[in-house]
Amino acid sequence: MVIEEVRIKDRYTQIRKCTLKICSPLTPEDHVVQPVVDVSPPKWHLGHTTWFFETFLLEPFAPGYMLFNDSYGYLFNSYYETVGARVIRTDRGNMTRPTVQEILDYREYVDEKMDTFLEGPLNDKVLELMELGLQHEQQHQELLFYDIKYILGNNPLFPSYQDTALSSAATAGIPNYLPVEEGVYTIGYQGEGFHFDNEEGIHNVFIHGCALQDRLITNAEFLEFIEDGGYQDFRHWLSEAWEWVKTNNIKAPFHWHFQDNIWYHYTLNGGLKKIDPAAPVTHVSFFEADAYAKWRGLRLPTEFEWEVACNQYGSVNEHSNFMGSDTYTPVPQEGGNNQFYGDVWEWTASAYRPYPYYQAPEGAVGEYNGKFMINQMVLKGGSCATPEDHIRSTYRNFFHPHLRWMFSGIRLAKNL
Amino acid sequence: MVIEEVRIKDRYTQIRKCTLKICSPLTPEDHVVQPVVDVSPPKWHLGHTTWFFETFLLEPFAPGYMLFNDSYGYLFNSYYETVGARVIRTDRGNMTRPTVQEILDYREYVDEKMDTFLEGPLNDKVLELMELGLQHEQQHQELLFYDIKYILGNNPLFPSYQDTALSSAATAGIPNYLPVEEGVYTIGYQGEGFHFDNEEGIHNVFIHGCALQDRLITNAEFLEFIEDGGYQDFRHWLSEAWEWVKTNNIKAPFHWHFQDNIWYHYTLNGGLKKIDPAAPVTHVSFFEADAYAKWRGLRLPTEFEWEVACNQYGSVNEHSNFMGSDTYTPVPQEGGNNQFYGDVWEWTASAYRPYPYYQAPEGAVGEYNGKFMINQMVLKGGSCATPEDHIRSTYRNFFHPHLRWMFSGIRLAKNL
Amino acid sequence: MVIEEVRIKDRYTQIRKCTLKICSPLTPEDHVVQPVVDVSPPKWHLGHTTWFFETFLLEPFAPGYMLFNDSYGYLFNSYYETVGARVIRTDRGNMTRPTVQEILDYREYVDEKMDTFLEGPLNDKVLELMELGLQHEQQHQELLFYDIKYILGNNPLFPSYQDTALSSAATAGIPNYLPVEEGVYTIGYQGEGFHFDNEEGIHNVFIHGCALQDRLITNAEFLEFIEDGGYQDFRHWLSEAWEWVKTNNIKAPFHWHFQDNIWYHYTLNGGLKKIDPAAPVTHVSFFEADAYAKWRGLRLPTEFEWEVACNQYGSVNEHSNFMGSDTYTPVPQEGGNNQFYGDVWEWTASAYRPYPYYQAPEGAVGEYNGKFMINQMVLKGGSCATPEDHIRSTYRNFFHPHLRWMFSGIRLAKNL
Amino acid sequence: MVIEEVRIKDRYTQIRKCTLKICSPLTPEDHVVQPVVDVSPPKWHLGHTTWFFETFLLEPFAPGYMLFNDSYGYLFNSYYETVGARVIRTDRGNMTRPTVQEILDYREYVDEKMDTFLEGPLNDKVLELMELGLQHEQQHQELLFYDIKYILGNNPLFPSYQDTALSSAATAGIPNYLPVEEGVYTIGYQGEGFHFDNEEGIHNVFIHGCALQDRLITNAEFLEFIEDGGYQDFRHWLSEAWEWVKTNNIKAPFHWHFQDNIWYHYTLNGGLKKIDPAAPVTHVSFFEADAYAKWRGLRLPTEFEWEVACNQYGSVNEHSNFMGSDTYTPVPQEGGNNQFYGDVWEWTASAYRPYPYYQAPEGAVGEYNGKFMINQMVLKGGSCATPEDHIRSTYRNFFHPHLRWMFSGIRLAKNL
Repeated sequence: MVIEEVRIKDRYTQIRKCTLKICSPLTPEDHVVQPVVDVSPPKWHLGHTTWFFETFLLEPFAPGYMLFNDSYGYLFNSYYETVGARVIRTDRGNMTRPTVQEILDYREYVDEKMDTFLEGPLNDKVLELMELGLQHEQQHQELLFYDIKYILGNNPLFPSYQDTALSSAATAGIPNYLPVEEGVYTIGYQGEGFHFDNEEGIHNVFIHGCALQDRLITNAEFLEFIEDGGYQDFRHWLSEAWEWVKTNNIKAPFHWHFQDNIWYHYTLNGGLKKIDPAAPVTHVSFFEADAYAKWRGLRLPTEFEWEVACNQYGSVNEHSNFMGSDTYTPVPQEGGNNQFYGDVWEWTASAYRPYPYYQAPEGAVGEYNGKFMINQMVLKGGSCATPEDHIRSTYRNFFHPHLRWMFSGIRLAKNL
Repeated sequence: MVIEEVRIKDRYTQIRKCTLKICSPLTPEDHVVQPVVDVSPPKWHLGHTTWFFETFLLEPFAPGYMLFNDSYGYLFNSYYETVGARVIRTDRGNMTRPTVQEILDYREYVDEKMDTFLEGPLNDKVLELMELGLQHEQQHQELLFYDIKYILGNNPLFPSYQDTALSSAATAGIPNYLPVEEGVYTIGYQGEGFHFDNEEGIHNVFIHGCALQDRLITNAEFLEFIEDGGYQDFRHWLSEAWEWVKTNNIKAPFHWHFQDNIWYHYTLNGGLKKIDPAAPVTHVSFFEADAYAKWRGLRLPTEFEWEVACNQYGSVNEHSNFMGSDTYTPVPQEGGNNQFYGDVWEWTASAYRPYPYYQAPEGAVGEYNGKFMINQMVLKGGSCATPEDHIRSTYRNFFHPHLRWMFSGIRLAKNL
Repeated sequence: MVIEEVRIKDRYTQIRKCTLKICSPLTPEDHVVQPVVDVSPPKWHLGHTTWFFETFLLEPFAPGYMLFNDSYGYLFNSYYETVGARVIRTDRGNMTRPTVQEILDYREYVDEKMDTFLEGPLNDKVLELMELGLQHEQQHQELLFYDIKYILGNNPLFPSYQDTALSSAATAGIPNYLPVEEGVYTIGYQGEGFHFDNEEGIHNVFIHGCALQDRLITNAEFLEFIEDGGYQDFRHWLSEAWEWVKTNNIKAPFHWHFQDNIWYHYTLNGGLKKIDPAAPVTHVSFFEADAYAKWRGLRLPTEFEWEVACNQYGSVNEHSNFMGSDTYTPVPQEGGNNQFYGDVWEWTASAYRPYPYYQAPEGAVGEYNGKFMINQMVLKGGSCATPEDHIRSTYRNFFHPHLRWMFSGIRLAKNL
Repeated sequence: MVIEEVRIKDRYTQIRKCTLKICSPLTPEDHVVQPVVDVSPPKWHLGHTTWFFETFLLEPFAPGYMLFNDSYGYLFNSYYETVGARVIRTDRGNMTRPTVQEILDYREYVDEKMDTFLEGPLNDKVLELMELGLQHEQQHQELLFYDIKYILGNNPLFPSYQDTALSSAATAGIPNYLPVEEGVYTIGYQGEGFHFDNEEGIHNVFIHGCALQDRLITNAEFLEFIEDGGYQDFRHWLSEAWEWVKTNNIKAPFHWHFQDNIWYHYTLNGGLKKIDPAAPVTHVSFFEADAYAKWRGLRLPTEFEWEVACNQYGSVNEHSNFMGSDTYTPVPQEGGNNQFYGDVWEWTASAYRPYPYYQAPEGAVGEYNGKFMINQMVLKGGSCATPEDHIRSTYRNFFHPHLRWMFSGIRLAKNL
């Protein structure tokens, strides 16, 4: 147990610092706004992740803990109905106070108290909540990248976030197919480590023989769809998808811009850049992923097919492109890495619904996943903005089918 | 083949007459309006089902067929992008012309031509389209009941549709559980008869041991949920469901009215009536069905569990309450009928997604089902407004989770 | 007084019959719908005008009067907050019951009771309310024409309302200017006859020397504006007008259709017709009238300039085109008639605000005019749908500046 | 002319510095957001006013002037269609770049160039545009106060802007009436100094005998309206006003908060404060001003009555509360100052329409006023946020009748 406690304190320090690093290229102004309802202001993320530790750890478990500021609960609660009133999501981007500096002070205050708190003996309930708090902060680290990219990419000046060297682009070859044999497979998290409640309820599924491509769909491949008039032909699209395309005048992935006959996209690594043909396409909605698959005469894999294939063929290796590689941009396949992990979250054909034996936990923590299990689709595998230790084959990410400000992408499958 | 042709002609006549019978209690005025986007005006249904036979049978296959009116294609196309422009759905309720009488003339004209056409030799393609046209008209018969009930029930005068005798209400006993054994089951339509494309792709699923209740949830049971404050407690509700409840101020199933401390509901059989405690609750959304199940500590069955249980325990029998019983209202369980068929469509826990081997057919007919496979949930078993010969255990109905103007209801399940 | 009573009874009969005549070309279906919020279903007009006599005359003054139907008050109240709850305006078009026939029965019932009631001695209060009820019904007669034209003209079949002969079109000559001398003028109703509260408060205005054109702007003249790109040039438009043009993609007056390079418009006299170059343009919003005037380098007259000019130059004569001429369509200027009266309501430059001494009457009748005196513009002179005895130079009609489903048109003015 | 040039350079320096002073209490974060469409981010004001001098003075008249940044035209154009594309107003609050510091650099760059430019000989056109630019900046200074108050007052922390001493509150006595004699008066700007185009077109109006109160309506008086149920009684309200009250659940002036049975309001001088009974009520819409007047049995003055009364009785004196008094809050009447000038803009009964001889100037400058002359009401007299030298009796301010984030207030009038 002592070892565990030491580890958790170090991890706490490391993860909390990482969040600050993510925001370090930002100006105070960049921290404030909320251009669409799905995006949260970076300073809100800074406050909210801190509020989590204050509310769920320090307040109940650290004797004599004094709140940093009584009103922060109201400002930094996200959606926990159990915990009380909160600033409505659409008004988050209008809260100029507390300032970034005040929130950094809040972080420092809570971090100091946590340091002391983590020195003491920690019971299992505390360790469990600590782990959740850290995983929660890692999720917000990834959201920070999405939201920062939205905020900067929405600005006509296309400000730079960073500009580090990327390895030179290879050409993507013809994709091969990775077969999955017909049979009954066990799905869900079976280890001892951390996992979310939505991965629980180990259960069997029957999978028919199928095969998944051994790499992600590239920008060059997706461009063929665009140039073939894919966005103009209703036959590829689900009915709601077609309405979405027409209403929003969608013509390319999010962050793509067509200027002087050339396709550019806004990136966190170098600002506006020509698209790299060999890199995985990203910022596509499920609607686009599904239409693309139909246009190719193929389909998306189910979350179960994906999980089984990943267990068989996927691995985290030197070529995996996670947050730690500091690119924050999907990169071309390299060295036989089949890209199950990192680069982009892969849309699956599966609606986000509870596993057969799923039980939402009691209390506020029970609001973490279960209540979102409707009208969303499952994505797998993590992205270039995911911390490497925050992903597993059983991890179920989920987004509404029209959303695409996250690093989402496409892998295709077929029946055998 | 001759036999088949005779049969199809008789069925054509019978089904077409049935549609007229459904509309016969209506005034011309009742045929016109569209109070919400999901409802279509009854006269539009009368025209649209006729347009189907004209467009897909007479025009391509009956030599020398003359269109009744050139502009009707524009008015009566529903959503077939393949077939051309159409009146946008939200403007359907503003089309006062053609009048009901003109549409009845249109029906008569097409029916006469069809009579002649059906005398001739019919190839397989024609027979297939005929079958689809008849099934399509049966689906619209059911929709007519929903839409008529919406239109009349929305009127402060609560006009009567019919008032026939119902068998006296029994009391619903404690529900028993019907066990489904763990194992691999085959799902999808396997017979020779008519079925929709979305039932195709026979495939295996693994089902864990579970049990389904042997009857539908009753009004009395649902009233307990209301009286326990179920609509005011966010813990039972999915996040989007809770928004829906608050935004729309939902407090009871659709068509329910609370007057002088008594719960009434609008029915097609007698207008405004006190709710019958023993009758199945209906006009609940998936959101309400799911919240109710959670409040009871149980869950909805998946579509696969339901299909397997229905194959094992369900039957169409003398107590099954379909359109043919002329009640148009769910009735209490009777004589050991476990209500898998008829009364209400049963919400399942399954999102409406394609089966593994699903292939949308080519052409306009391919728009029938596949393009709706997103953001909707599967319902099973048919209702008191479903023609008896229009249902099977593999039939997949689907609606968005917030909708409830159809005859939808609840059966609960649990893990074993 | 006896004479007065006789007259009022005859007028009651005549005006009530006229309303029925207006609806006589309609099918029951045409009576039901409400394609936009500003339009009311014809059957609602039939019921509402009847409800007015029942509520304000029979109920308070006819001893022993029994309501025809208790719920009709709820259904047929328009906007009188004083009198209680009412069907919200956007739901009027979904009320299929009472049917047209039931409303005709309602009218007959009330008319019979009114006949008896009008035989008796009538005090001044009653006579005053009778007059208001008749004027009110005449206003609804005019609205009926607007609403019927909207309903039929919105239908892709462009059904015919009537098709009577129109006198052959003359060519409109160059407009002359009618001078108004600088000075102080008295404004407002000064006679003994009926007038609305908004004409009261006789008061003086100072008018600078100006001149008004001696006829209305024609379709040919307005077409020059269209062909000059008037709808595409922001410089002619008020800021809100320009938003309105862009948001609604406005390119021509309402009811105009461009087919095979020819401009048609839907009319109540012959359905879809080529526009008549010499006839006054109609179905233009204030935004369009104002933009047109600016494009011409001229301006609209104020309501005061118009009233003074009309008193000096206007007259109801054999060429005035009112409801009684049964055209329901503006016609070319003829025989020196300067068109101050009839044909189209003329947009003025004046916002609809109370006169200096204006006092809203007490009670429900006080809601007739005063509460609408914001964000609307004044129109003068009556139209081809106005009863001839329902107009005077002091009559102040008013509509929001973006509306144009009524018979509205343009007369230009300039400073001297 | 030399004198004039010196003066304009000094005024330029003084006015530009004043804008910076207004923003000096703000954090960078406070400069960014746009909580509602009517509010602009403070940093946008800083950029836009600078862009005005760059675009209309330096670019056309300063030879060899180099734009500070090519893209700023796009970012800081407000609504001048003539000058090209612009960031849509609802997206202004999402532009985090340029940062506040970059905009301050932009200001410094332009100010330096302007310094040099203003040394040279200036022709009349330039002097005219300079004057407009300075007046324009003063208008934005006032808007800055409104917008800053909105941004800070919308924050649940109610941050302080400043906290300077206010003179102790007097009690407001019974208002007296200032009579205006019946007669013809000349309206509009007749001097030699700066004025806006909308004050031009000197013309006569006839005014009937009336009297205006000699002070503004106080908080205490308005509280009587609240406590009498004024916000719950439809009879006081225009129809659109009543919809506005119900839709937005309006219960008090903007920035008012009811806590523990006490009325507070957010102020720029001390944050949240108990309302001062003797101070003028502010942050009321026209709808509220009009309802209040009706409830009192009085009325608002017309803009003409106000202008005449102000010319007769009004004066800028030691008690006038303008921006220069650094309160940014209306204060109680003192020393016989009848408050025509300063404290709050006074709603009039007049719609904002062009004067009879009004001509919009040519070019972009012509978009300044004329195109807004619809659906707005005239306000007179300036406020506690108006620069003292930026007001005249002929000044016509205008806002939509539902708006109230500006310092707006009420003076009542009656007929004689």
